[in-house]
Amino acid sequence: MLLEQWFTPKPFTTEVESIDLRVGGSSVFIMRGQNGEEMRNSGVYLEVVPNERLVFTDAYTQAWKPSAKPFMTGEIVLKDAGAGKTRYTATARHWSAEDRKSHEEMGFHEGWTLAARQLEELAKTL
Amino acid sequence: MLLEQWFTPKPFTTEVESIDLRVGGSSVFIMRGQNGEEMRNSGVYLEVVPNERLVFTDAYTQAWKPSAKPFMTGEIVLKDAGAGKTRYTATARHWSAEDRKSHEEMGFHEGWTLAARQLEELAKTL
Repeated sequence: MLLEQWFTPKPFTTEVESIDLRVGGSSVFIMRGQNGEEMRNSGVYLEVVPNERLVFTDAYTQAWKPSAKPFMTGEIVLKDAGAGKTRYTATARHWSAEDRKSHEEMGFHEGWTLAARQLEELAKTL
Repeated sequence: MLLEQWFTPKPFTTEVESIDLRVGGSSVFIMRGQNGEEMRNSGVYLEVVPNERLVFTDAYTQAWKPSAKPFMTGEIVLKDAGAGKTRYTATARHWSAEDRKSHEEMGFHEGWTLAARQLEELAKTL
């Protein structure tokens, strides 16, 4: 699956255990590091507009079962930027200032930026 | 608006300040008691299937801004029960056992049941 090729900054890897890309559909991604660390992230899609917008949250594990910890809501917006380019904007929103801070400290900005660059490189080869 | 006629057990009243009944649409309901107490509840619709299913949560105030406190997700399911009847099932799910308990202590079961009866009475007159 293409998503597995760009979703986590190398050398982290992503395995898509399941993905059901529709409003209310859920996904489980397993991210692994070099030292055997493993993060299993599950979430639900809140909005799916092909080629335009994707919104998802870990507040639910499936429609509509609350997760153990509502941490973030992510929004990806794609806009035509002319000259064959696309503007990709990723936003993460949190339910508390503490969670936002902890996400920043986990390397949110660097991680999502690196992943977006990997997506760009991959897109060029398609 | 019909909703204002059944949504809260009398003598509580409901004022619909705004309602945008679609996935990602938000609503603000103001509930008032006899002694001037006022509760302003805002939320977002997660699923809207006319005559079948309605899912909403107070985890967002609008699409997709996290609220100060994600408390519950509500699900209303309507099913044809034959003989001109409809089975109405309301479920509330919470992100913590404490919130569930506090919702029960606030009178969830009694309140939602009374409101459903008011809805039934109103439906008979339409």
